[in-house]
Amino acid sequence: MNLGSSTPDICLFGEITFLEKLHIDMEIKIIENGSVSTPAGFTASGIKAGLKKSGQPDLALIFCSEPAVAAAAFTSNIFAAAPVQWDRQIIAAGKAVRAVVVNSGNANACTGKQGLADAQTMAEYTAELLQIKPEEVLVSSTGRIGVPMPMEIIRKGIDQAAAALSTTGGVAAAQAIITTDTRPKHLAVTVEIGGKTVCIGGMTKGAGMIAPQMRPCPPQATMLAYITTDAVIERNALHVCLAEALDHSFNRIIVDGDTSTNDTLIALASNLAGNPTIRIGSEDWQVFCTAFRQVAGTLAREMVLDGEGVTHFVELRVRGASCAEDARKVAEAIARSPLCKTAWFGGDPNWGRILAAAGYSGVSFNPAEVDLDYEQVPIVRAGQDAGTPEAEQVKALQGREIHMDLKLGQGRGGFTLWTCDLSYEYVKINADYHT
Amino acid sequence: MNLGSSTPDICLFGEITFLEKLHIDMEIKIIENGSVSTPAGFTASGIKAGLKKSGQPDLALIFCSEPAVAAAAFTSNIFAAAPVQWDRQIIAAGKAVRAVVVNSGNANACTGKQGLADAQTMAEYTAELLQIKPEEVLVSSTGRIGVPMPMEIIRKGIDQAAAALSTTGGVAAAQAIITTDTRPKHLAVTVEIGGKTVCIGGMTKGAGMIAPQMRPCPPQATMLAYITTDAVIERNALHVCLAEALDHSFNRIIVDGDTSTNDTLIALASNLAGNPTIRIGSEDWQVFCTAFRQVAGTLAREMVLDGEGVTHFVELRVRGASCAEDARKVAEAIARSPLCKTAWFGGDPNWGRILAAAGYSGVSFNPAEVDLDYEQVPIVRAGQDAGTPEAEQVKALQGREIHMDLKLGQGRGGFTLWTCDLSYEYVKINADYHT
Repeated sequence: MNLGSSTPDICLFGEITFLEKLHIDMEIKIIENGSVSTPAGFTASGIKAGLKKSGQPDLALIFCSEPAVAAAAFTSNIFAAAPVQWDRQIIAAGKAVRAVVVNSGNANACTGKQGLADAQTMAEYTAELLQIKPEEVLVSSTGRIGVPMPMEIIRKGIDQAAAALSTTGGVAAAQAIITTDTRPKHLAVTVEIGGKTVCIGGMTKGAGMIAPQMRPCPPQATMLAYITTDAVIERNALHVCLAEALDHSFNRIIVDGDTSTNDTLIALASNLAGNPTIRIGSEDWQVFCTAFRQVAGTLAREMVLDGEGVTHFVELRVRGASCAEDARKVAEAIARSPLCKTAWFGGDPNWGRILAAAGYSGVSFNPAEVDLDYEQVPIVRAGQDAGTPEAEQVKALQGREIHMDLKLGQGRGGFTLWTCDLSYEYVKINADYHT
Repeated sequence: MNLGSSTPDICLFGEITFLEKLHIDMEIKIIENGSVSTPAGFTASGIKAGLKKSGQPDLALIFCSEPAVAAAAFTSNIFAAAPVQWDRQIIAAGKAVRAVVVNSGNANACTGKQGLADAQTMAEYTAELLQIKPEEVLVSSTGRIGVPMPMEIIRKGIDQAAAALSTTGGVAAAQAIITTDTRPKHLAVTVEIGGKTVCIGGMTKGAGMIAPQMRPCPPQATMLAYITTDAVIERNALHVCLAEALDHSFNRIIVDGDTSTNDTLIALASNLAGNPTIRIGSEDWQVFCTAFRQVAGTLAREMVLDGEGVTHFVELRVRGASCAEDARKVAEAIARSPLCKTAWFGGDPNWGRILAAAGYSGVSFNPAEVDLDYEQVPIVRAGQDAGTPEAEQVKALQGREIHMDLKLGQGRGGFTLWTCDLSYEYVKINADYHT
C-alpha cells in the first residue's frame, strides 16, 4: 500500500465512532514510507531465503531493542499451524517479546510433531543469533499446508535476515511476507499522547483463504498482520486494544470465505515514546485505540483490495436487524455467496441474489420490509424493485469500491463487512497454485 | 440425462441401505427415454412461450387424468417465491392435484402482491383450459428474481402447452424447465409391487444457486424436480417417502452453496397401476421408497453433474464424526470452500485445503486422527501427508467423478454429500447471466 505522502490529510480507514462520541481532539499523521520498523526501538528486514520457487523474498524478521509488551490473536481453525501453537504458549505466558520471524512459501501446518519441533527450532535459532531467549521469539509461517519445513534454507535465511536488520527494513519485511498478494502492504502513523509523539507501524499479507475468525489469545487465509508501536502501554491495555481493533478490522473481512490454519495478528510495544503509561479505559488509551484501530482497519481494507483476483471492493452495511449478530449473519451470507460475488465481478445489479442470500442466512425478518441501496441509489424498496432504471443501477456498480446498504426493518442491529468480487483470476490463481 | 437403454443394468444412483438390510428382492428397470409422462395417467408438454431471450422452450405442463395424490417440499429461503407460496397452501390443504405448470426465464420472486396474484392467475388460467379447479394446479417458476411476470406471454404459453399435452411430452417438458443447464434431465423406471408393474418418472433442472435445504411441506437454486408415479399409494406414505428421499438426494447436494427462493420438489401419484394400496411402513412401501429414492438420487446427481461450469463431480464421504450432524457440517464446509473447489478444477491434490475447511467447520475433532483418501488412494494419515507420491495423488483426481473419504476418528457419525468444482465457466455464466 502506498499511502505515499506526509500531508496532514488522513486517508486512513476505520470507524472513529467512540472518538466522535467523546469529542476528543486528535490528529493522526501518516509517515511517508512508514512500516513496522518506524516506531522507536524496532528494526526489521526481509530477504530471499529460497523457499519460494519464484525466487521472491520469503523471510522477514522484526526485532525490538527492548523487551516489548505483546498482544496477539490467532486462527480459530482446529488445524492451527505449528508456529501458531508455539506463539500461543508465549502470549499466554504474558512475557515480553523481542523478535518475530516470519516465512512465506510454507505454512508449517498439518506437519505433526516435526512441524512443532521446526517452529521451535526457528525460534531457538533466531534467539541464538540475536542473543535473546527462544521464548522471546514469535514465529509465523504462510504458504502451502502439509509440506515439511526445509530447515536448512530457513536457517540460512534467518542468518541473512538477522544481518540485514535496519530501521528502514520494515518495507522489505512487508515484501517478504506476501504470497499471492500483488503488492506489499505497510504503513506508519503518529499521534500525540500526553505531549509525546507516539508512532504505530504495521504490515499485513492476505490474498486468499481470507475469512479470519481470530480469537485474542487466550485468539487462518493466511492473513498475517504485525503492528508495532513505541507507546508506553500496559499489557492489558494493549491486549484489549488489539481485541477491539480485531473486531472492527480483520474479523470483518471476507475474501473467499475460507479460514486459514495460520492467521495471526501480533502487536508489540517498545515503550520508548516517553508518554505517560497508557492504562486501560483512560482518555490516552482511547486516543491510542483509535489510532491503532485505524492502522488495523487500513491494513484489513488493503488486504481485501489486494485479495486474489479482486476487481471490486464491497463494503456491505447491514442495518435494521434484530441484533448485531443477526446483521453479521446476513452480511456474511452475502459476502460468501458465489452468485453475489460473480455478479459484482460482472457489474450486474442482480439484487435478487443479495436478497436470496439474506433469505437463506438463517436470520428471521420480514421480506416485505427490506430496502437495498447501491452507492445510495435505491435498488430495493419494501422487498421489491425500487424502480431505478437499470442503467443507473449498473452505473452505481462501476467503481472499484462499492458501498451497499441493506436495511431489514426489524430493529437496531447493524454490522459492516468488507468483501470483494469473485473473478476468473481467483479461479486461475487457486486452480494453479499448487502446480 | 440420457440413460438411453432398456437393458436390465441398473445405472441408477442412490443408497440401497434399507433394502440391503431387509433382503428384499427387487429389480428396478429403466424405461428408454422415460419421463414424467411415462407413468399411467400422466401427459406433459414443453413449448416456447417467449420468456427466454434465447428463444428456447420455457413453459412446461404436467397433467394427470386422475386426482393425483401429492407430496412436495419447498425452499426454506425467507424470500420464498410467489409460486412456492401458492403451492404450499395447496399441499398443506392435503387435496388432490391435477396439474403442474412450470415456467423458466422468470422466478416470480421478490415481486410482492402482484407476483402472488400472477402465480394465482397462472393456476386459474391453466385450470380453465384443463377444466379443473385452480386449487388443483401447482405452479413453479425459475429464472431472474425481481422481474414482473409477463402475463400475456404466460397466457399464450399455457394455451400452447395445454394443446400439446401427450404421453411422450415429458421429454419436451424436461427441456422447457431448464435455465443454464446444458441438457434436459429426465428418466423413468419400473418396479414390481404386489404383482403389478409400478412406474416412476422424473425430471429436474438445476445448474446454479444450488444448495437446496428444502423442508417437506408443512419445505431455492433454483432447483425444480418433479416425480410422477402411477402407484396406488396413500398420501402420508408418499409424503414420508418424499421427505426421506429428499434427505438422501436433493438436500445433500451443493453446487455453489447458494439456496434459491424457488426450490421445489413435487411428487404426484395417479393411483392407476392396480397394485395393492401402498401403506406406510409396509414391505411394498419400502420397495417403492427404494425405487423412488433411486429416481430422486439419480436426478440430484445429474443436477450436480450438469451444474454451472462443472468439470468434476465430487462425492464427499465423511465418516467417524461424533454424530451425523457433525459429519454433515464438515462435508458442507468442504463443499462450500472456494479453495477446495478451485483445487478440484485444477486437478490439484492440495489436501491442506480440505483439512483447513474441516478445521473451520465448527466441529470438534482431533486433528491428529484425521485420514483422507482420494479414490481409495491414501492422502492423509493421522493428520499428515500419507506419503503417496504426488503423481499418484494427481492421477486419482483425473476422473470426471471423484470419490473422497474423510475419516475423523471420533465416533460413528457419517454423511455423504455430492458436490463439484468451481471453474472459469461458473464465473463466466454468473457474471454474464444478467446482461
